[in-house]
Amino acid sequence: MAAVRQLLAETGYERLTVDAVAARAGVGKAAIYRRYASKVEMVFAATLHDDDLPPPADTGSLHGDLLAIAHRVHARMNTPAARQIGPAVIAELSRSSELTEKFQQGPLAAERQLYATVLDRATARGELARPADPAVVHLLVSGPIFFAVSGYRISVDDAVLEAIATTVTAGLRS
Amino acid sequence: MAAVRQLLAETGYERLTVDAVAARAGVGKAAIYRRYASKVEMVFAATLHDDDLPPPADTGSLHGDLLAIAHRVHARMNTPAARQIGPAVIAELSRSSELTEKFQQGPLAAERQLYATVLDRATARGELARPADPAVVHLLVSGPIFFAVSGYRISVDDAVLEAIATTVTAGLRS
Repeated sequence: MAAVRQLLAETGYERLTVDAVAARAGVGKAAIYRRYASKVEMVFAATLHDDDLPPPADTGSLHGDLLAIAHRVHARMNTPAARQIGPAVIAELSRSSELTEKFQQGPLAAERQLYATVLDRATARGELARPADPAVVHLLVSGPIFFAVSGYRISVDDAVLEAIATTVTAGLRS
Repeated sequence: MAAVRQLLAETGYERLTVDAVAARAGVGKAAIYRRYASKVEMVFAATLHDDDLPPPADTGSLHGDLLAIAHRVHARMNTPAARQIGPAVIAELSRSSELTEKFQQGPLAAERQLYATVLDRATARGELARPADPAVVHLLVSGPIFFAVSGYRISVDDAVLEAIATTVTAGLRS
């Protein structure tokens, strides 16, 4: 993962090769392909996250938990490496429905699981009258951040993250 | 605009040229450049929207107005042409801060104005105790749709649009 990040900074996504990563990391190419079937999957794991996403510590409230996720999502999407590879990942997914399905079963499912965990906590605390769909809450919290960072490239400050967490929490509780 | 859409369908974004559009439309290239300074601005206007976005008809409630915008945003982002050019627009914005600024002053400002209009209506109806920031509500409603369509390419049905409008409205009202 460190080798991927170094080479991304040196050569950019387009010219990065799995061969170069293997050489830099001192491992065989097969060892990489056992774990990542394609360059884009390897790069996503190295710059955004892999499929093992630990949930945030329990803050004691749904608002606190969603705010913690929002901060983490923004911090990850807003690194130079993630900002560099974001458009390439989007383009690769748009060209391949097979790759899209792999991303939905891998990173997307991992992200939704984070939301499922904090919604379960909220239900256990009695914060939610009705169950909420983790897939929708994922769109409602991660979506605005993705839109701002990868779409119109709007800078997102703490106040915006707070407004997202506050509005979504109040909407789910009401 | 019709010539752009025809040529996009025939040749794709990469091979589309302003020359070909001028020839197809039977106008001079200068006439196009007077209106659109670049290919990407021309294509965005032809497939998503121009900078003159009429607000939706007043449905009588903030929920109805936000749901109407959500349906419109999804319908526009989900056409074959928009799905084709989305990744190209994202890549071009990521490479040029000058272009990003033009998109923020053009299409982004037009989209925010839609939200400002429906929030003003909601305030006038007495639906909102406190004023809401149109820029944040834009992220909260358009963001999840953009994330689903252009990010993980998740299909968005009426129930998801309804859940987005309902949660955001309840969050803003509480």
